[in-house]
Amino acid sequence: MSKEIEVLEANEAFYRAFTARDADAMAALWSRSAPVACIHPGWDALDGRAEVIGSFRAILGTSSAPKVHCSVAAAHVVGETAFVTCHELVAGARFVATNVFTREEGAWRMIHHHSSPLGPAQPRVHRPEPELRS
Amino acid sequence: MSKEIEVLEANEAFYRAFTARDADAMAALWSRSAPVACIHPGWDALDGRAEVIGSFRAILGTSSAPKVHCSVAAAHVVGETAFVTCHELVAGARFVATNVFTREEGAWRMIHHHSSPLGPAQPRVHRPEPELRS
Repeated sequence: MSKEIEVLEANEAFYRAFTARDADAMAALWSRSAPVACIHPGWDALDGRAEVIGSFRAILGTSSAPKVHCSVAAAHVVGETAFVTCHELVAGARFVATNVFTREEGAWRMIHHHSSPLGPAQPRVHRPEPELRS
Repeated sequence: MSKEIEVLEANEAFYRAFTARDADAMAALWSRSAPVACIHPGWDALDGRAEVIGSFRAILGTSSAPKVHCSVAAAHVVGETAFVTCHELVAGARFVATNVFTREEGAWRMIHHHSSPLGPAQPRVHRPEPELRS
């Protein structure tokens, strides 16, 4: 199996844990030895495993935790590290995410998640006139 | 020099190129051999060097290209790959970014940039503001 497919499967596991509200499965997906961080939509960056896993336990522990479906995932592998870009569909809203992974004990474990709102009229093909704010 | 400092300096170089509207310097900062991607605020993911560099040339080529100042940068190194989380200050607005780097020919080159709006009331509590300035 190619590394890209392995990474895409690890990415899918993240969204399965999210949608199942399974905080233990979520915790198991994140690296235990590498430095980790997380940027939830609109939030500041969380730094370190305790803070990141704590945020997911808080989010997934509520009955209103959203189901998050992943689509158009693309894996980019660089040696033993990889990042995925994908869309997240949450209650009719569309987000775009970066998920970073590293190989640890034979498995691809997450080291970073960054999710943010996707603007309107942003098909995943080519961009029209660039209009930028950053 | 620690890898973290090297990575933070590469991150600063990205914002210097941005603020100087120097598209050639920007192009030189990005990897030529690894797969690259970029998510500008509100945009869908751009995939591949041609698309990513093209977007920066379009953005930096306009007289209205914003100056972007980086603060509270934190580097997370995993072997020969690293990611930085930081804030971007753009004309009074605050964004949060993920920048991913890999070591290539002795230099830390960018492989991914993801920037998105920071919500209100999100102080960066866990960081003592030790950022490198350009």
